[in-house]
Amino acid sequence: MCFFLSFVFHDFHHPPFCGDVQNVVSVMDGLDTFFLLFAGALVFMMQSGFAMLCAGSVRQKNVKNIMLKNLLDACGGAIGFWTIGFAFAYADGNTFIGTTNFFIKDFVTGQELMGFFFQFAFAATAATIVAGTVAERCKMQAYLCYSVFLTGFVYPIVVRSIWSEYGFLSAFADDKFQGVGVIDFAGSGVVHLTGGATAFVAAVVLGPRKGRFYDEDGNPLETPTAFPAHSVALQILGTFILWFGWYGFNPGSALIIDNSGSAQVAALCAVTTTLAAAAGCVTAMFFDTFLEMQRSGEVSYDLTMAMNGCLGGLVAVTAGCSVFQPWAAIIVGAIGGLCYVGASALLIKSKIDDAVDAVPVHFANGVWGVLAVGLFAEPDAMGAAGYVVENSGLFYGGGGSLMICQVCCILWVIGWVFAIMFPFFTLLNAAGMFRVDALEEEVGLDISHHRGSAYDLSAPKKEDVEELMEVRASRHGKVEVPREVADAAKASEGDA
Amino acid sequence: MCFFLSFVFHDFHHPPFCGDVQNVVSVMDGLDTFFLLFAGALVFMMQSGFAMLCAGSVRQKNVKNIMLKNLLDACGGAIGFWTIGFAFAYADGNTFIGTTNFFIKDFVTGQELMGFFFQFAFAATAATIVAGTVAERCKMQAYLCYSVFLTGFVYPIVVRSIWSEYGFLSAFADDKFQGVGVIDFAGSGVVHLTGGATAFVAAVVLGPRKGRFYDEDGNPLETPTAFPAHSVALQILGTFILWFGWYGFNPGSALIIDNSGSAQVAALCAVTTTLAAAAGCVTAMFFDTFLEMQRSGEVSYDLTMAMNGCLGGLVAVTAGCSVFQPWAAIIVGAIGGLCYVGASALLIKSKIDDAVDAVPVHFANGVWGVLAVGLFAEPDAMGAAGYVVENSGLFYGGGGSLMICQVCCILWVIGWVFAIMFPFFTLLNAAGMFRVDALEEEVGLDISHHRGSAYDLSAPKKEDVEELMEVRASRHGKVEVPREVADAAKASEGDA
Amino acid sequence: MCFFLSFVFHDFHHPPFCGDVQNVVSVMDGLDTFFLLFAGALVFMMQSGFAMLCAGSVRQKNVKNIMLKNLLDACGGAIGFWTIGFAFAYADGNTFIGTTNFFIKDFVTGQELMGFFFQFAFAATAATIVAGTVAERCKMQAYLCYSVFLTGFVYPIVVRSIWSEYGFLSAFADDKFQGVGVIDFAGSGVVHLTGGATAFVAAVVLGPRKGRFYDEDGNPLETPTAFPAHSVALQILGTFILWFGWYGFNPGSALIIDNSGSAQVAALCAVTTTLAAAAGCVTAMFFDTFLEMQRSGEVSYDLTMAMNGCLGGLVAVTAGCSVFQPWAAIIVGAIGGLCYVGASALLIKSKIDDAVDAVPVHFANGVWGVLAVGLFAEPDAMGAAGYVVENSGLFYGGGGSLMICQVCCILWVIGWVFAIMFPFFTLLNAAGMFRVDALEEEVGLDISHHRGSAYDLSAPKKEDVEELMEVRASRHGKVEVPREVADAAKASEGDA
Repeated sequence: MCFFLSFVFHDFHHPPFCGDVQNVVSVMDGLDTFFLLFAGALVFMMQSGFAMLCAGSVRQKNVKNIMLKNLLDACGGAIGFWTIGFAFAYADGNTFIGTTNFFIKDFVTGQELMGFFFQFAFAATAATIVAGTVAERCKMQAYLCYSVFLTGFVYPIVVRSIWSEYGFLSAFADDKFQGVGVIDFAGSGVVHLTGGATAFVAAVVLGPRKGRFYDEDGNPLETPTAFPAHSVALQILGTFILWFGWYGFNPGSALIIDNSGSAQVAALCAVTTTLAAAAGCVTAMFFDTFLEMQRSGEVSYDLTMAMNGCLGGLVAVTAGCSVFQPWAAIIVGAIGGLCYVGASALLIKSKIDDAVDAVPVHFANGVWGVLAVGLFAEPDAMGAAGYVVENSGLFYGGGGSLMICQVCCILWVIGWVFAIMFPFFTLLNAAGMFRVDALEEEVGLDISHHRGSAYDLSAPKKEDVEELMEVRASRHGKVEVPREVADAAKASEGDA
Repeated sequence: MCFFLSFVFHDFHHPPFCGDVQNVVSVMDGLDTFFLLFAGALVFMMQSGFAMLCAGSVRQKNVKNIMLKNLLDACGGAIGFWTIGFAFAYADGNTFIGTTNFFIKDFVTGQELMGFFFQFAFAATAATIVAGTVAERCKMQAYLCYSVFLTGFVYPIVVRSIWSEYGFLSAFADDKFQGVGVIDFAGSGVVHLTGGATAFVAAVVLGPRKGRFYDEDGNPLETPTAFPAHSVALQILGTFILWFGWYGFNPGSALIIDNSGSAQVAALCAVTTTLAAAAGCVTAMFFDTFLEMQRSGEVSYDLTMAMNGCLGGLVAVTAGCSVFQPWAAIIVGAIGGLCYVGASALLIKSKIDDAVDAVPVHFANGVWGVLAVGLFAEPDAMGAAGYVVENSGLFYGGGGSLMICQVCCILWVIGWVFAIMFPFFTLLNAAGMFRVDALEEEVGLDISHHRGSAYDLSAPKKEDVEELMEVRASRHGKVEVPREVADAAKASEGDA
Repeated sequence: MCFFLSFVFHDFHHPPFCGDVQNVVSVMDGLDTFFLLFAGALVFMMQSGFAMLCAGSVRQKNVKNIMLKNLLDACGGAIGFWTIGFAFAYADGNTFIGTTNFFIKDFVTGQELMGFFFQFAFAATAATIVAGTVAERCKMQAYLCYSVFLTGFVYPIVVRSIWSEYGFLSAFADDKFQGVGVIDFAGSGVVHLTGGATAFVAAVVLGPRKGRFYDEDGNPLETPTAFPAHSVALQILGTFILWFGWYGFNPGSALIIDNSGSAQVAALCAVTTTLAAAAGCVTAMFFDTFLEMQRSGEVSYDLTMAMNGCLGGLVAVTAGCSVFQPWAAIIVGAIGGLCYVGASALLIKSKIDDAVDAVPVHFANGVWGVLAVGLFAEPDAMGAAGYVVENSGLFYGGGGSLMICQVCCILWVIGWVFAIMFPFFTLLNAAGMFRVDALEEEVGLDISHHRGSAYDLSAPKKEDVEELMEVRASRHGKVEVPREVADAAKASEGDA
C-alpha cells in the first residue's frame, strides 16, 4: 500500500502507519470525521432541494428571486454561523449563550472542524425554510438581514438550550430537566420548528400576496385564488433531493459511527426516516383524494399533497428517529401527513399566505414530531442513543417526565421565536423594508429586481429552419429531408 | 476528542471507547454500517433519476402523472418491503419463501437494520423500472397495485432464489447449483431483468399509446409516430443521477468494506461500472449515427441513444461488475449499447410501445449482463468476491457450469415474472382497471387526474411591465431604462 | 454479525474476520478505499452540475448539443484516461511522462483501482470545463477530438509535473523544486487552470457567436448583445450540485482518512471550501450590484454574478484548501469573486466570447488560487498536509520559495496548454472542422445536428379538454366542474 501510494498519489502522512499499527483511536477519529463529511454534504445538498422545491412552487415571474434567496442564505448562513453562530450555540459561556471560540478559532482537530461544517449545514437549513413562505413579495434586503440574524443568533440560542451541555432543556446537561431533558435527536424542534415558526411570524406580518385572498379593493374573495406552481418537475426534484439529504440529516445526527452502538443508532434512523416519509406521503395524498372525491365526485391525485405529506412525515420523524421503533415511525409519519393537510387548510382559512406551504410542513410537523417522542420513545432504543432509559414515552409507561420536557421544548421554541422575530419583522415592515411595492409584485420580482425572466424558451426563426432544410435536401439531391428535422421545423412554426 | 464532544455535541455513547480500546470488530461494524448507509442513499437517489428521466421522456400532458408514480412507488416499496417483502426474501423458511421476521421485527443491530434499508432501495428500483414503460396510459390505481405486489412478493421471491442462502440458484447456498450458483453480483438479473420483464409484459397487455402505431380507425401507420420527449434537460439530469447512483448500486453490493479484500471488490466495481457506462454510451450513439447516415446522408447525434446506451452499459455490467476485468467491462458495456439499439428497434417493429425504452435498457441488457458473466468471469476476481474459483467464465476455460447457471437464471426470472405478471395484468385489464379511457389519454393524465398541467410559464402582463419601466425612468429623471428590463419587457410582449 | 450476514446477505468474504481480529491495516485499507469511492462519486456528480449549468446558460436552440457534449466527455474521459491518461500521469517513466501500466493493467488492490476512479473523475472535470465556453458554435467532432486529447495527454502531463513523485514541480518528489514544490492540493492549477486555459485558447481561435460582438456585416456593435440564459433553474441547480461535488473534490484530495492527521486535513478542507464559496458569492453579487447602481440608479441583484462568484470562490480555494486558515479562505474566496467579475468584464471588452463564463471562473480563479497559496499557506496546516513547513506563505514569513513555485506552476500550465492547444485548435479550424456553418449556428445545433428541439411543451387540444369537462359535468348531473380542471382548461386555451 505504501509503495503504491508513494508512486501514485501525493502521499503525505501515511508512512507512520505502515510499520507498526498502534492506534485504533486514530482510525476511529478518521472514520467519524468522514461520517460527518458524508452527512454534512448530504444536508448541504438539501439547500438545492429547497431551492428547487420553492422555485417550482412559485409563479414563473419570481423564480430567479427565490433561487437567489436560497443561494444567498446558504452563503449568509456560512458566514453568520462561522463568525458568531457556532460560538453562541456550543462554546463555553453561560446557560443562555456561548461567549468564546468566535470564528471557531480554537478548533484544530478533524472532528472539531468537521463538526462545525455539519452544524453549519443544519443552520443553513433552518434559515432556508423561511424563503418559500415569504416568496413572491419579500424584499431581498429584508431576507438577507433576516437570514443572517437567524443563523447568527436566533437559531444558535435554540441549539444551545436543547443540544449543548449547557442548555436548560438539554438531555446532555449534567442536571437534566425533569431528569431526562428534551429528546430532539435530529431537530424537529431545533431546526424545523424554529424555521417554521419564523416562517409563520413572517407570513403574518408580511400579509398575503396580492390577489390571493382579497380582490384589488381589499374585499375578501369568496374562494382564495390558487396560484399555480410554475413547474412540478422542479418540485418533485426538490422533494427527492430533500428526502435523499435526510439520510445525512437523521442518521448523521448520530455524529459518530465508530462502534456497534452508534452504528445501530444510525441504522435505526435510516429505517424510521424511510418509513415515515412513505407513510406521510401516502396518507396525505389519499386523505386529500378522499376529501376531494366527497366534494366533486371525481377521483384525483394531488402531487402537492403527496410531496408535502412526504416532507411532513420526514419532519415529524426527525425528533425521534433514533428512539422510535419502525412501526411507530409509520404511525408518526402517517399522522404527520394528516397534520400537513389539516394545517394547510387551517392556514388558508385564516387567510395566512404561505407560498410553498412551509408552515404546515415544518411548523405543524415540528410540533407533532417533538410531541410524538413523548408518546413513542422506546426504552431500548433510548438507551442505545444515550438517553435516560427510565423516562420513556407514555405508551411505554415511562411516566410524564419526558412528555413535560417535550411540551416545554415546543413552548420555549415558539415563545423564543415569536418574542424575537415578531418585533423584528414588525419593525422592518414599519420601516418599509419588508415588502416590495405593489407594482413590482405584479410585474414579478425577476423583472423588477433581477434583470429579466428566469426562462427564455424562444425558438429559432422559421425562415432559418426552412432554409436549412432546403440546403440539406438539395445537397443530397432529394426532396426528402430527415424526418426529425421536418418535425422540428413544423414544431418551431407553432412557437414562432 | 472526548472533551471536544462533551462540549460541542450531543455526546452519548462515546465515553466507553476513550479509555481503553478493545474492539476492532466494533469499529468494523460501524464502518460497514456506514458503507451501507452511503450506498443505500445513493441507490435511493436513483429514484429521482428515474423520475427525471421518465418525466423528461413523456409528453408535457403526462408529467405530473409519471412523477407521482415514481414518488409513490418509492413509498409503496418501503411499506411493502418492510411488511412482507424482506421476510419473503431473506428470513428463515423454505427454499421458495421466507416465513419469519415480518416487519423486520427481529432486527436490532446496525448491519441488520441498515441491510434492510439497502435492500429496500434495490426493491424500489425494481418497481420503478416499470413506471416509464406504461407511462401516459396506465391507471394510477393499477400502478399502485402492481408496485406493491412487485416489491412485496414477485421481486422478493427472485431475490431469495439467487441471493439468499436458501435459494435454489444461489451462489451462497451450501449446495450450490452446478457447483457454483448464479453470479449476479449487483442484480442485472435480480433487479433489472425482473423489472424489465415486468415492463415488457405490462406493455404487451396494455397496448400502445393512441396514435403511436395505429391511426384513429385502428389501421397500422406506415411509420410509427415518434412522440417527442418534452424535456431533454430532465432526461439528461436523470441519466447523470442514475449513473451517480450506480456507484452505490454496484460497489455497495460488496456490502462490507472493512478489509482489503472487500475494498478490492468494491474498487473493481467502481472501475468496471465507469468503463461500461462510457462504452455503452459511445457505442450506441455512434452506431445509431452510422445507421442514420446510411438512411438520410446527414450526420446527426442522438441524445436518446447516447443516454440509453449509457444506461444499457450500466445494466449490463451490474451482474459481473466484481468479476470482470476492466477490458471486459468495456466489451460488455459496448455490446450493451448495441443490445439497446437493437432491442429498441425490434420493439418498435413488433409494435410494442415503451414510452421510455425501459425494456431495451433493463430487459435486453439484464439478459446480456447475466450471460456476459458466463463468458468473462475472471478467476482471481471471482475468488476475491467469494465465488467458486474453479467455475470461471468460458473465455477463462472454466467449463460450462457457470454458463448453465446464468442461462437458468435468465429462464427462471423471465418464467417467474411471466407466469405471475401476465395473468395479473390480464385480469386487471379485463376488469377495466388497467388503462385510462381514450378521452382521458388524449387530454393527458395531468388534467384528467391530477388537477391541471405540470407547468405554468405565463409571463407577467405587458401593461404592468411597461408601467414599471415608466415609473423607473421618471424616478431617475431620464428616459433611459436599465437595458435588461427593457429586454425583458420586449420578451414578455412576445409571450403575452 | 456473522450469523446475521449468513442468513441475510450474499455473504462471501467476512468469515475470516469473525474469529480473530489481527489486522487494523486491513480495516484502514477498507476505510480509505471507501473514502475515495465517496469522494470520486461526488466529483463525478459534478459532471451533471456542469451539464445543468452550461445547458441553463445557453439559448434554447443549443441545449441538446451542450448536454450531449457533457455526457460524451465523461465517457471519452473514462476511456482516454483508462487507456493512456493515467499511465502518462502516474506510472513509472521519466520526469515528463509515464511509460508503463497502460490500461491500469498492473492494478489489483482496492486503493489502486479506486485511486484510478477518483483520478478519472478529476480528469473528466478538467475536460468538461471547456464545453461551456465553446457552446453554441463548436462542432461535435471537434469537441470529441479535443476532449479525448485533453484527458488522454494534455492533462496527464500537467498532473505528472505537479502531483506525481516524478514531476519537476512536485511537492512529492525527492528533490523538490525550491525545496518545497508547488502546493496545489486539489487542483486550482492542475484541473481548473488547465481546463480554463484550454477554454480560453479555444474561445480565441473559434471566435464569438454570431451577433454577439459584431453585426451581420462584421462591424463591431456598440454594446455587445447579451444572449439570455434559457433557464435559470438549471443554472442554479448546476451551481448547487457543483458546490456539493466540491466536498468530494477538496476534502477527498486528502486521499486517505484512516487517522487523526488526515481527518484534520479533510475537515479543514470542508470548512475552507464552504467559507470561500460563500464569500465569493456574496462579494461578486454585491460588487456587481454596486456597479449597476452607479450606472442605472436601480438596485438589482444578478443571479449569474452570485452563482459564478460562488464558483469562482470554490475554484480559488481549491489549491490551498488544506493550508488556509478559515479566515484566509474568506479572503481568498472574496477576492475570487472579484476576480470573476473583473475577468468577465475584461473578456467582453476584448471581444472574446465565453458562452458560460468558464474562463473567468476557472482560468482567472485558477491563477488566483495558485497564487493565494504563496501568500496564505499556514505552517501548521502545511505540516498536517505533509508539505515542507519551512516554506510557508509570504504572510507567514516563509520567504519567497513557495511563491516562486506557485508562479512557476502558473507559467508552466499556461505555457504548456497554449503551446499544445493553440496549434491544435488552429489546425482544426483551418481544416474547417472546428466551427459549424453560419446557417446551422443560426438555426441552432439541436435542430441542425440532434434531430430537433430540446423541449416540446405543447399542451393538449382545447376541444379534448372541453369534451372531458362536459363528460364529467354530465356524469355527476351538475354543471359545476372541478375547479382545477376548469382552470387548466382555461390555461390551455391560452397556449393552444
